[in-house]
Amino acid sequence: MADPAVDSERFRQKFDSFSEIGATDAGGVNRPALSDENKQARDRVVEWFEDAGLDVTIDEMGNIFGRRDGEEDDLAPVLFGSHVDSQYNGGRFDGVTGVLGALEVVEALNEADVTTRRPLEIVCWSNEEGVRFQPDMLGSGVFCDVFDLDYAYAREDKDGNTFGEELERISYKGDAPCEPRDIHTYFEMHVEQGPFLEQEGLPVAAVEGVFGFSWMNVTFEGQANHAGPTPMNMRHDAMVATSDVIQAVRRITATEGTDLVGTVGSVDVWPNAINVIPETVEFTVDFRSYDDDAVDAAVGRIQQEIEWAAEREGLDYEFEQIMRVDADPFHEACIDTVVAAAEELDHNYTRLVSGAGHDANYLNKICPSSMIFVPSVDGISHRESEFTEWEDIVVGTEILLEAVQKRAAE
Amino acid sequence: MADPAVDSERFRQKFDSFSEIGATDAGGVNRPALSDENKQARDRVVEWFEDAGLDVTIDEMGNIFGRRDGEEDDLAPVLFGSHVDSQYNGGRFDGVTGVLGALEVVEALNEADVTTRRPLEIVCWSNEEGVRFQPDMLGSGVFCDVFDLDYAYAREDKDGNTFGEELERISYKGDAPCEPRDIHTYFEMHVEQGPFLEQEGLPVAAVEGVFGFSWMNVTFEGQANHAGPTPMNMRHDAMVATSDVIQAVRRITATEGTDLVGTVGSVDVWPNAINVIPETVEFTVDFRSYDDDAVDAAVGRIQQEIEWAAEREGLDYEFEQIMRVDADPFHEACIDTVVAAAEELDHNYTRLVSGAGHDANYLNKICPSSMIFVPSVDGISHRESEFTEWEDIVVGTEILLEAVQKRAAE
Repeated sequence: MADPAVDSERFRQKFDSFSEIGATDAGGVNRPALSDENKQARDRVVEWFEDAGLDVTIDEMGNIFGRRDGEEDDLAPVLFGSHVDSQYNGGRFDGVTGVLGALEVVEALNEADVTTRRPLEIVCWSNEEGVRFQPDMLGSGVFCDVFDLDYAYAREDKDGNTFGEELERISYKGDAPCEPRDIHTYFEMHVEQGPFLEQEGLPVAAVEGVFGFSWMNVTFEGQANHAGPTPMNMRHDAMVATSDVIQAVRRITATEGTDLVGTVGSVDVWPNAINVIPETVEFTVDFRSYDDDAVDAAVGRIQQEIEWAAEREGLDYEFEQIMRVDADPFHEACIDTVVAAAEELDHNYTRLVSGAGHDANYLNKICPSSMIFVPSVDGISHRESEFTEWEDIVVGTEILLEAVQKRAAE
Repeated sequence: MADPAVDSERFRQKFDSFSEIGATDAGGVNRPALSDENKQARDRVVEWFEDAGLDVTIDEMGNIFGRRDGEEDDLAPVLFGSHVDSQYNGGRFDGVTGVLGALEVVEALNEADVTTRRPLEIVCWSNEEGVRFQPDMLGSGVFCDVFDLDYAYAREDKDGNTFGEELERISYKGDAPCEPRDIHTYFEMHVEQGPFLEQEGLPVAAVEGVFGFSWMNVTFEGQANHAGPTPMNMRHDAMVATSDVIQAVRRITATEGTDLVGTVGSVDVWPNAINVIPETVEFTVDFRSYDDDAVDAAVGRIQQEIEWAAEREGLDYEFEQIMRVDADPFHEACIDTVVAAAEELDHNYTRLVSGAGHDANYLNKICPSSMIFVPSVDGISHRESEFTEWEDIVVGTEILLEAVQKRAAE
């Protein structure tokens, strides 16, 4: 009996075929959560899970599980996977790498006819991206008791469709309860979405933890007025104050902590006309760091800057921190398992902290978890040009296969 | 025979009735050019012009003229009026004050049975606001040979409807040629849309001229990337560069010329998501001054600032000056006529330069022109809360009546 091994060709054929679902002209995919394209991707996942002999279960949140029996089938399973929903016009690697990589691990075990001691489950989580329904990581969030099921069902997209209705529409509202259960280990392979691995010339990282972050909504309200006859000293320009805050975000990231990043990603102006002074600007601020004190200090400083900007320009303002997630160190033993797998397979690797949140963060609340990162070319993600070299995905999957077997033998 | 006099009650009844067309809940009107509500407003104008005994003509651009014979009917007419299209959810005084004020002048002359030496024409111009079809002042622009008729017809709204199609749809594509003809004088009464008259406690101004202005479109193009794992030193954030330019606009208005104003009114961000670094920002810059050198200097300085901001952030950029209109001094004799009318009627007044452009600017190219301003409460315009005290509108109309008679007697 040969050792189980990743079959690069078999895996790649599936990966390329999967990339055709919701494909965009520019090489990406458009499969936002619960869209028709997301349903097609889910149908393919279910079909392939069943083809691989897995026992498929769909839970109340539409999370798809494929179970492979272990020698001691009553033991808590080793769970691994990721997601197949995408950003609007997103990349074809984000999430998919982890789901199809998990499937390849199962196929490698099948081909070698290996039964692990613990049962294995591979998973495809609902609505990781959070672009259509906020918040993100909704499927794993309910599974890990971070959100109520009713709360999740009531989330609305911008057209007023709820998550619950849309889940039913695409026939993925399953019967299995979506709630915490006994899981031995969770692994997730994912593209890095940052530049470090590529810069270091490394194919893979053991992820030690994930940045904490704060999301804020800010509204400035001034006075719309004609851009011609309104002298500068009588203006209450919401866009000028917003630009003050954007400058302050940059300044704060340069002087607070060591890894703090800050972004104003969304800006909506009203009435948004060339000859009218902006009355209302709604915008977001995103701060992240592995150091929670740095995030909290940045939030405090930007609140102060918002107040100053409003006072300077004579505006009303609203400030709301809509999300605050602490930095999340993964489970030491799981990280060590990934490291050991990389060393045994003689793959170069590093330890890395992730700037982006993942389903693994929620799983880490209910079971020992860690992640495996493969490089993102030019650090690009959430775009159609997102790319990862195939050989790196194979390395990551080999390490996943090894790490899963190690933990499943425990 | 009594001297012609403004009948405040008669005028106000018409004004209030007219405000109901396209009325919004917040006290404004929504009658963008060639909309159904604009058609209703036009129908009312035509009906009232005819009721006042005027000979109504509609030209190829949908400009509505009402002619009143003079004693020497072959002489060039005195023309006066304004517009009845509005901003989206705009105010009920902008434009309407000048059209219904002109009608009240005719009614006052009718009631006093006065025939002027020169014929009179009152006018309602098409698409002054330019919010649905750019550029603004399109009807008077074609009339004064600034734009070709075909160019005007081909203007598209954001749904792809052309000006020509929509003009036909609302049955206002008339037969009369829209081209320059011999006009003795053009007067336009309008709300100031700025704060000066109210600050000075004056009911009326003789307008000496209008600010020149430059309109610019700017696009920054950087790189969309995940807001978490992308370190600050690898970012190409189009919104940060835009905020640099907004700051520079303020700085330039403080240091260039004496009356220069500058506005970034429209800002569109892509992909506009809380957790994605802005890749593309399209925004506008508007500079205005009565000093053309100051406008040109400001344009030069902001171009430099845009280049620096792009270089600083590692972005591509596009810059286009889409409009550059020189400062426009009105005709001395016409200004003097307004001043003389105000003095004879014993109304307090001032001389003022307008920050906003008006149809009178184009008319000033083909005939002696000037304007009469009445105050805008809090300087507010282009908003539903736009307001002018009725007694000030009456004062402005009395001066218009007097000034029209003076010029029509020449």
